[in-house]
Order: sequence, then structure tokens, then C-alpha cells
Amino acid sequence: MSSVCLSMEGGAAASTPAALPYYVAFSQLLGLTLVAMTGAWLGLYRGGIAWESDLQFNAHPLCMVIGLVFLQGDALLVYRVFRNEAKRTTKVLHGLLHVFALVIALVGLVAVFDYHRKKGYADLYSLHSWCGILVFVLYFVQWLVGFSFFLFPGAPFSLRSRYRPQHIFFGATIFLLSVGTALLGLKEALLFNLGDKYSAFEPEGVLANVLGLLLACFGGAVLYILTRADWKRPSQAEEQALSMDFKTLTEGDSPGSQ
Amino acid sequence: MSSVCLSMEGGAAASTPAALPYYVAFSQLLGLTLVAMTGAWLGLYRGGIAWESDLQFNAHPLCMVIGLVFLQGDALLVYRVFRNEAKRTTKVLHGLLHVFALVIALVGLVAVFDYHRKKGYADLYSLHSWCGILVFVLYFVQWLVGFSFFLFPGAPFSLRSRYRPQHIFFGATIFLLSVGTALLGLKEALLFNLGDKYSAFEPEGVLANVLGLLLACFGGAVLYILTRADWKRPSQAEEQALSMDFKTLTEGDSPGSQ
Repeated sequence: MSSVCLSMEGGAAASTPAALPYYVAFSQLLGLTLVAMTGAWLGLYRGGIAWESDLQFNAHPLCMVIGLVFLQGDALLVYRVFRNEAKRTTKVLHGLLHVFALVIALVGLVAVFDYHRKKGYADLYSLHSWCGILVFVLYFVQWLVGFSFFLFPGAPFSLRSRYRPQHIFFGATIFLLSVGTALLGLKEALLFNLGDKYSAFEPEGVLANVLGLLLACFGGAVLYILTRADWKRPSQAEEQALSMDFKTLTEGDSPGSQ
Repeated sequence: MSSVCLSMEGGAAASTPAALPYYVAFSQLLGLTLVAMTGAWLGLYRGGIAWESDLQFNAHPLCMVIGLVFLQGDALLVYRVFRNEAKRTTKVLHGLLHVFALVIALVGLVAVFDYHRKKGYADLYSLHSWCGILVFVLYFVQWLVGFSFFLFPGAPFSLRSRYRPQHIFFGATIFLLSVGTALLGLKEALLFNLGDKYSAFEPEGVLANVLGLLLACFGGAVLYILTRADWKRPSQAEEQALSMDFKTLTEGDSPGSQ
């Protein structure tokens, strides 16, 4: 019975669901439009970006949208897109994309704190900033825990399989919270910069509202691809066999698991 | 083989996962705190609620938090909480909670449009309002489609089982978008009402930030309970048997399904 399952799942690994590539392409189109539109908003209406000037602030939204929205979203999709590569390669790519996202987000954080310091503005008073710090800390912790369980060798198989669903849930939740925090930041920027002009349907306001909807749509598209049960990455025959070996080797360490 | 599965799943229906009640209780504590805190915010800092006055606006946030956050969230949890009731009873409760949520949200919508009209304020210019209208329309459409597939008799079994995963995904997404829209509205209210005082850590600002975090936590708690694979409602033996009958009866209408 178990060998039948193995060969069935091994065979399934070679195929990609027919609709998946279209959904992934759509999500990438959304993500790239999102980044381009953030750049366009900052370039057309906010004077562009320059580190050593008042325009330093503008590095913040761009870095956050690239790092904590686009790259973080793509890191979550790695297991759906690279279905037939070795598990280890996919894992390393997943971890690396998250590192890039984290570094770019850190630059975005430095930009806003540095800007506030130079201007003498208060830090961390707004809901956007509270959510932002929460997201950044959770993201960093999730990366560290994920690295030590899944990439660093030595974590027993039973521990990995118990932690995996938590890792996936918290990964998706942190991503959604990042999108929500970006929406709050966008709203904050609009109300600070436009004031009463916002209600007069100024072009900047309409552009930024569309950007907000795109942010929400990108979040929704990533979540859809991630959660569709029949699009999950199939286990490969050799991984299953390896897992069995691992399980046999490490069975002793958790008598009560499953 | 199939009768073995039936009896196993029928047996599982009688038990409730040990940790589930604690998580549900925690989510309800969060939800009730959320509603109470919204009331406290409006009562302490915004003058309370009265329909025929300037305080009419305040009915908007309270209705939306009760309807589109708390009740909508609880409607999603119905299938996890009422595990051993008849499927039909649970379904009707799920549909009814969504109707209550929709009606309360409608009152909240009327409140803000009526207030804007009396004050001569512009409608639907902000990202919050765009997201809000999107949520309300999607929620109404989801309810109608859900009703006609699952409660109205006559939808063939094959169609129901193909639509079910979409219904669940869009239900969760609309709920999360509702939470995000509430956060945007809260932020808008804070920036309009507090202005520069927000950055001075005024008590109202801190209270509202905590309210925002609670909104996000409630969203996260509902999502966690909803997505945990081993907490899904088990099929009951008699339902399975009924489904089989249905399937046999309606098999002709979709030759290519499954």
C-alpha cells in the first residue's frame, strides 16, 4: 500500500496543474505593476528619491513595497513555481528571497528613522508604525526559526513536520500583515500630503487609491495560489524515501508525535 | 475500502480536538474586547452615538466592527464550533450570521452616507471607501452565490463540491479585506480628528492603535482556527451516505467532474 502511494506521488511530481502558470504570471504582472506604480507615484508627485535630502523619506515606501510585499510574496510562491526541482534547491531559493526582502526592508526602515531624526519628528506613534515594527520583528523571527528548522542540518524529521504547518500559517499571516501595513502607510502619506485636496479627487489621490487596490489584489492572488489544495507541491519519490529513512533514524526522539 | 473510510470519519465526528475550544474562546474574547473597545473609543473620545445629530457618523465604525468584523468572523467559525450538529443546522446558522452581519453593515453604510450628505462632504474619494464598497459588494455577491449553491435546494452535488473551495477562499479573503478596511478607516479617523496631536502620544491615539492591533489579532485568530487542517469539520456518516446518494442521482449532469 505505501509503495503504491510513493510511486503515485512520484509520478505526480512531473506534472504542473494546467491553470497554475497563468495565475503565477498574473500575480507577477500585478507585483511588477505595483512596484512600477509606487515608483511612478514617488517620481511624479513626491519629487523622486535621494538619500541625502528631504527625499530620503521616499526610499521608505519603495523599499517596503519591493521587499515586504513583492519579494516576500514571491518567496511564498517558490514552492508552487519550482515544483520539479530538488527540494533543497527550492528551499535555498525560498530562504534567499526572504533574505533579500529583509535587507531591502531594513534599508527602508533606516530611511524613515533617519529622516525622522533629521527632521525632529516623533517616531513610532502611529498605527502604521506599530504594525510595521510588529511585521518586521515577526518576519525576522520567522526567518530565524525557519532557517534553524529547515535549512540548518540536524533538526529531526518529526520536529520539522510538526513545525511545517505553523511555518506556513505564520508566513502567510506575516505577508498579509505586511500588505495591510503598506495600505496604512499609503493612507497616512495621502492624508499628510493631500489633506483636503484628497476629497477633490486629485490625480495623486486616485493613483494612490488604485495602488492600494493593487496591493490588496496582489495579496489576494498570492494567497489564492498558496492555498489551492491541488496546487500544493507534490512530494517527490526520492524525498519520500529519504523522509522515511529520516523518520526511522529519528523516531526515538518523539514517541508521542502524530 | 469505502465503508472503512465512512465508519472512521463517522467516528471522528463525535470528538472535538482538545485545543480547539481554547482557541475559539480566545478568539471570542478578542472579538468582544474589540467591540467593547470601539464603543469605549467612540463614547470616551468621540462624544458617543446618536442618529439624528453630528454623532450619526459614529454609528459607522461601531456597526462595521460588529457586522463586518466580529459577526462575519464568527460566521466563518460556525463549522469549526458546531462539529457534531446536523450539517443543515450549521449551514443555516452560518447563513443567518452573515445576514445579520450584512444588515448591521448596511446600517453602518447608511449612517456614513447620510452624515456626508447632511454635511455636504464628498463621498467615495478615499482608499478606505473604495475598499469598503468593494468589500460590501463582494460580501453580498458571496452570500447570494453561497445561498443559491448550498441552501437553496436543487444545486447538484458535483457543482457544490466544485464551488466549495472557492466559497471558502473568497469567504476568508473578504473577511481579511474587511479587517484591512476597518484598519484604514480607523487610521483615517485618527488623522482627521487628532492631527498633530497623534504624534504626541495622546491617549486617544494610543487607545486607537491598540484597537487596530486587536483588529489584526482577531483576523489572525479566526484565520488560524479556520485553516488548521486537523480542525476541519469531519464529514458525518449519514452525510457521506447522503452525498453518495446525491452523487449517484446527479452523476449524469457533469460527466467530466472530479
